[in-house]
Amino acid sequence: MFECRLPKAKVLKQIMDALKDLIKEAVWDVSAQGLSLQSMDSSHVSLVQVTLKAEGFDSFRCDRNIALGVNMDTMQKLLRCASNDDNITLKADDNGDLLTMVFENPNGDKTSEFEMKLMDLDIEQLGIPDQEYSCTVKMPSNEFQHICRDLQNIGESVKLTIVKGGVDFSAYGDIGHAKIHLTERANVDDEKDAVTVDISEPVNLTFALRYLNFFTKATPLSGQVSLEISPDVPLVVGYEIEDLGHVKYFLAPKIDQEDDE
Amino acid sequence: MFECRLPKAKVLKQIMDALKDLIKEAVWDVSAQGLSLQSMDSSHVSLVQVTLKAEGFDSFRCDRNIALGVNMDTMQKLLRCASNDDNITLKADDNGDLLTMVFENPNGDKTSEFEMKLMDLDIEQLGIPDQEYSCTVKMPSNEFQHICRDLQNIGESVKLTIVKGGVDFSAYGDIGHAKIHLTERANVDDEKDAVTVDISEPVNLTFALRYLNFFTKATPLSGQVSLEISPDVPLVVGYEIEDLGHVKYFLAPKIDQEDDE
Amino acid sequence: MFECRLPKAKVLKQIMDALKDLIKEAVWDVSAQGLSLQSMDSSHVSLVQVTLKAEGFDSFRCDRNIALGVNMDTMQKLLRCASNDDNITLKADDNGDLLTMVFENPNGDKTSEFEMKLMDLDIEQLGIPDQEYSCTVKMPSNEFQHICRDLQNIGESVKLTIVKGGVDFSAYGDIGHAKIHLTERANVDDEKDAVTVDISEPVNLTFALRYLNFFTKATPLSGQVSLEISPDVPLVVGYEIEDLGHVKYFLAPKIDQEDDE
Repeated sequence: MFECRLPKAKVLKQIMDALKDLIKEAVWDVSAQGLSLQSMDSSHVSLVQVTLKAEGFDSFRCDRNIALGVNMDTMQKLLRCASNDDNITLKADDNGDLLTMVFENPNGDKTSEFEMKLMDLDIEQLGIPDQEYSCTVKMPSNEFQHICRDLQNIGESVKLTIVKGGVDFSAYGDIGHAKIHLTERANVDDEKDAVTVDISEPVNLTFALRYLNFFTKATPLSGQVSLEISPDVPLVVGYEIEDLGHVKYFLAPKIDQEDDE
Repeated sequence: MFECRLPKAKVLKQIMDALKDLIKEAVWDVSAQGLSLQSMDSSHVSLVQVTLKAEGFDSFRCDRNIALGVNMDTMQKLLRCASNDDNITLKADDNGDLLTMVFENPNGDKTSEFEMKLMDLDIEQLGIPDQEYSCTVKMPSNEFQHICRDLQNIGESVKLTIVKGGVDFSAYGDIGHAKIHLTERANVDDEKDAVTVDISEPVNLTFALRYLNFFTKATPLSGQVSLEISPDVPLVVGYEIEDLGHVKYFLAPKIDQEDDE
Repeated sequence: MFECRLPKAKVLKQIMDALKDLIKEAVWDVSAQGLSLQSMDSSHVSLVQVTLKAEGFDSFRCDRNIALGVNMDTMQKLLRCASNDDNITLKADDNGDLLTMVFENPNGDKTSEFEMKLMDLDIEQLGIPDQEYSCTVKMPSNEFQHICRDLQNIGESVKLTIVKGGVDFSAYGDIGHAKIHLTERANVDDEKDAVTVDISEPVNLTFALRYLNFFTKATPLSGQVSLEISPDVPLVVGYEIEDLGHVKYFLAPKIDQEDDE
């Protein structure tokens, strides 16, 4: 039997919002360690990986590892019926074909119980190797979202040029050229406004804006986003979920003419 | 001659919002007692009934009973031209084919006068018999609206199960099953947050969510909604308009398998 | 070489919003006096004229007169990438085919540089003769916007009847008739709430609401709008931009039956 409880439905709603445009169906793997999900997007270009640690929940019980195959759209639709402040309980039997979600309002006089049918999904898990990255950029997640959205007006790709002390985001297109420069920003009142660049060697790589814009749907989950980047390996766009886990997206660089400006 | 005046256009705008998706044309019956309207919805499934008492107006004069046939869409469009705080005057001659609406802003330097053409409508009035109901539920109108909207994600119908102390709203569909339980709620800071269940015998009836969702367009009119319900007679969904009257909707229960869960 | 700087991108964004639905391509004429633009709308019915004076900028340098042909949609798209509080610099070489726009955030650690390709446009400038007008009405710009929007629900045209002390806006249509009367309003707390009517002879002219509603896209630029009106010449709808210049729209009256009510 599996049963877990979160004090606020909001975080689970935000996680579904962060995933639903990328993936249609996915498997939540449940173990004593917590919940996790890994899936290629529906066009098999990027990968998303979610970890929610057992100790981040109000209560968490999992007697045997189980796999919950869900239609993401349905799960999001049902979670939308929860108010942000409702507490939420997820339950499933070891061999059942239902996921039960219970939402309870703060003063306890409204309880909503949803039973969602599970799907038999056969999804292959890719191993994600541990990796050292040449650069790690941390920046306000909403600033990253704006930049990706703005540059999509110009072109299909963004070139990330990371050097000591700053980052350039450039895009080319029929209507012109754009370069957004962000300088490291350390002395800030609010930690989430910081921009930090941790670099062992400069990088200069190009990525598809279409996918970065999908990833920024996770913006409400975290004040900061981290970009981990090295030549020849996928970029990692990571959002930490306070005390609970993370959502990470992986996207391989474009290998075309990224050096001619 | 008919002439009446309300201090705020807002309430009349809200009434039109509450009616307009259900009915395309209707007759406002004007008498010395006030304004009233009764109409089946355009697919002849539900019935709506509005009463606005003469004593709720700033001034009300009606020399002879008259019937004002209006296109609801047109009347709503014109009322939208009034600001919420404008005072509003309705005028019609006894044998005229025009309804005049005058909106005046609070400091009196802007006056808008709209003359709307009336229609010759032949609408049969149904008698609505006085009725004792097995159960009367009163609850926050926005909570009822949320429940009806949420359950429409699951199925086409909602089953209302009313017992002493609480109400269950259940829905079934391809994606699963939902049950929302509301417990009676008496000690509240704000009267409109209360949930009360007045019951002489338990009921268990099923209704089309499509129509309940039309009815909840009246939510802005009143903090509370009342559900009056008895076996074999239409449900009454009622919204009181403070000091002025009410909007009531009538909907017959579905007679299919409402008892197998 | 041309280079100018504004402390807030907001005003330039608002100007583009005010123009973009009317004109697809236009030429910004740059001289030592400032920036100006004049263009017929794409259906050649109305005319728009913009003046931004050199002295209204933080800095302004123009060595030789140049003409910058721009696609309005592209320019607006790029300006939308600026935050309202960013300062903005425009730059162009004397014989170049690029307009460079640089946005810098207030604390100076984010710089966005956009290079927009210019177009070779051959646009004929109409002389706008200096003119005395029979009436000048000044009123809150958002009130004018509401009136034009409301009356479009009734008919295609508005008749302006201006007499000493007030203005009538009337419209006729299949659903009825509307007349909105505005009285002169002098004693107001906020200057932008005033309604003033300056009149040498009464006028009574009819205009296409479709175009007036395009013009009111300039509403955010100014708290007040001015209507300058005389028989047989185009109405001027003007929005002053504080310390910087103005946007003016010209629209000829309709010559059909404007006098039979």
